[in-house]
Amino acid sequence: MTYSEDFFNLATQLIEAGRFIDSKGWVPATSGNFSARLPDGNIAITVSGKHKGRLQLGDIMLIDKDANSLDGKKPSAETLLHTSLYKRFPEIQSVLHPHSINATLTSRLFKSEIVLEDYELLKALAGIDTHESRVVIPIFANDQNIPRLAAQVEQYLDAHGAIHAYIIASHGLYTWGGSVQETLRHLEALEYLFDCELRLHGVRTI
Amino acid sequence: MTYSEDFFNLATQLIEAGRFIDSKGWVPATSGNFSARLPDGNIAITVSGKHKGRLQLGDIMLIDKDANSLDGKKPSAETLLHTSLYKRFPEIQSVLHPHSINATLTSRLFKSEIVLEDYELLKALAGIDTHESRVVIPIFANDQNIPRLAAQVEQYLDAHGAIHAYIIASHGLYTWGGSVQETLRHLEALEYLFDCELRLHGVRTI
Amino acid sequence: MTYSEDFFNLATQLIEAGRFIDSKGWVPATSGNFSARLPDGNIAITVSGKHKGRLQLGDIMLIDKDANSLDGKKPSAETLLHTSLYKRFPEIQSVLHPHSINATLTSRLFKSEIVLEDYELLKALAGIDTHESRVVIPIFANDQNIPRLAAQVEQYLDAHGAIHAYIIASHGLYTWGGSVQETLRHLEALEYLFDCELRLHGVRTI
Amino acid sequence: MTYSEDFFNLATQLIEAGRFIDSKGWVPATSGNFSARLPDGNIAITVSGKHKGRLQLGDIMLIDKDANSLDGKKPSAETLLHTSLYKRFPEIQSVLHPHSINATLTSRLFKSEIVLEDYELLKALAGIDTHESRVVIPIFANDQNIPRLAAQVEQYLDAHGAIHAYIIASHGLYTWGGSVQETLRHLEALEYLFDCELRLHGVRTI
Repeated sequence: MTYSEDFFNLATQLIEAGRFIDSKGWVPATSGNFSARLPDGNIAITVSGKHKGRLQLGDIMLIDKDANSLDGKKPSAETLLHTSLYKRFPEIQSVLHPHSINATLTSRLFKSEIVLEDYELLKALAGIDTHESRVVIPIFANDQNIPRLAAQVEQYLDAHGAIHAYIIASHGLYTWGGSVQETLRHLEALEYLFDCELRLHGVRTI
Repeated sequence: MTYSEDFFNLATQLIEAGRFIDSKGWVPATSGNFSARLPDGNIAITVSGKHKGRLQLGDIMLIDKDANSLDGKKPSAETLLHTSLYKRFPEIQSVLHPHSINATLTSRLFKSEIVLEDYELLKALAGIDTHESRVVIPIFANDQNIPRLAAQVEQYLDAHGAIHAYIIASHGLYTWGGSVQETLRHLEALEYLFDCELRLHGVRTI
Repeated sequence: MTYSEDFFNLATQLIEAGRFIDSKGWVPATSGNFSARLPDGNIAITVSGKHKGRLQLGDIMLIDKDANSLDGKKPSAETLLHTSLYKRFPEIQSVLHPHSINATLTSRLFKSEIVLEDYELLKALAGIDTHESRVVIPIFANDQNIPRLAAQVEQYLDAHGAIHAYIIASHGLYTWGGSVQETLRHLEALEYLFDCELRLHGVRTI
Repeated sequence: MTYSEDFFNLATQLIEAGRFIDSKGWVPATSGNFSARLPDGNIAITVSGKHKGRLQLGDIMLIDKDANSLDGKKPSAETLLHTSLYKRFPEIQSVLHPHSINATLTSRLFKSEIVLEDYELLKALAGIDTHESRVVIPIFANDQNIPRLAAQVEQYLDAHGAIHAYIIASHGLYTWGGSVQETLRHLEALEYLFDCELRLHGVRTI
């Protein structure tokens, strides 16, 4: 199989994103998966079972918009969660899904959603230009049945419109953006905000 | 535009300061801004919207003492907070503004000011030569209206005289010094002291 | 003494594992020990008293399945804990024993066992394919008498069958797998899960 | 001034120790000081006011056993605390004094001493061969008058005999050993043990 220059370019960005994300401890063991959309609508996505901090070019595969493998490699079981985001939001070009401790703890403490308010760093999220904003990140129950989990997400998005990210309980975070770079910015900001809330929550409830 | 050797020298120091500050996690996403004053009174300052841990020379711009761009680049919205510090304190040559979690949590827990006492590391702040000192760091409400925020700072400084740093609530820290190096020393010491206070506060209130 | 290519290959993997484990802070001072089984049944294992983050080839020695030194070097006092795992479980090829703070704190808070449930990251453990699993990690009292400690472990395994890891109280974790790589995956996942439980435990009991 | 090969050897070890200690965050700003004794009884020690994570050869100076400068450089104000340890204990060849947050918090929570018991990692301290040991680390009040502080330490050592380390309250830790390497092992173990105690203390008192 021959890959396009667009594929190599985005695969390289995903590999570098993985190194950064792993340096923060957000993809322990072989957890997480990352993707980026090519101009032709196909999607570069990490294969199953690799450590995301030590990705090689051969660990990134190509799928079409319906999650069919185009190069014979086996995509992650959670690929459907990526493709349904790309279908719904034409402006997003990358989806990152790490498994941080903060996302897992957030889901245990805040149950159905976490509300982020009054932080300057909210402005790192696309479309937010003041700390006087209210950003809701929904938390969905974990499910090994990915189509059923994807349907749960779709239903929420139908009812609530665009959001910046969602958490799968005791599992991890999904966030996205107009480029790999912007998605990393969203991820870094959300981790900061979850960290603040977790630490304040611990202190506040005493 | 041609830049002076002084500019290149200070820009390089700001780039290296950014790498150090990012390695500590104090400038997540594209948050923060840094500056240094040139001998001629103009100011090298980070442009808007770049990741402070991965600055390039082209991400540092030149403004005059009144915050006017001298090279056509767009400075950060918060530039006024830098220039008003330089005008008030002729001895300071650098201003660093990171967005650490500790500064944000400090503002949530201590509200209007944090008082630092009885730490040996207070001696890392210019002019302090004993742990038996009382250093007050004021905390100002966040405001997207920067002239109004700057006026709030000016009013405090008129009333209280020289301080070592201030916090903008749920936003970040401003600190300064006689060189980029000294300002980094102040920053590293303040982060340590905030960390101590936050952890003691959490434990004490139990 | 001449070592085989298998030995050099596995010794190199143990050295690299040590650097990774030390980068996480899980082998402070000269604590911990690591081993891997060769195809011929002999075992490459770290010698006593070296810093596990800065291992050299000469710090890995060769023993037979009964813990006898084959190259005249002195193995760790805890070698018996490695060899008894290899004898019981023919499928395992590596044993890693770090001394993380999380393992120590887990033993102080959870006493006789820690139960891990409902985490997606449980799937990083061999044989687990859903978060709806219940993984029990037993905690044994520390003992300077290693044969007596090994007997305590054997008795538990006789009664309970295969487990993924065990903790020695206020001491450290033992985990294993089908390769050095898989054992590292188990270690990274268990550390994440202990961290979650410790932080939730601290918060929940308030 | 010409320095001996012994001096260069030990100075290099102190520089590398500084990089390691700074990578852990234990010498913020320009805090801390390190020394090592030469075979002739003179002492290599860090000069005042340098960042201990970025030491150069010129930042290490030579003093005699009575703390007199032998090369015209200015030693740290706390040099007397080093020389009095070397005089009392002929077997120690290095003294390390970092300013970790853990040492500061330990002094605030445990007041006059911290007792370490039942940890396997106690065996990293010279002369300890079982976790069933009781190690007491005294905590002394901070004092800018170094001769008075040194006298306080001497008095304690006269009354209690040899110890492994002491803490100066809200300031930092002093520890020592038979080589720079052994002193680093003591430091790494003590930091681990303080961290455990601080976290258990926080949890236990809830």
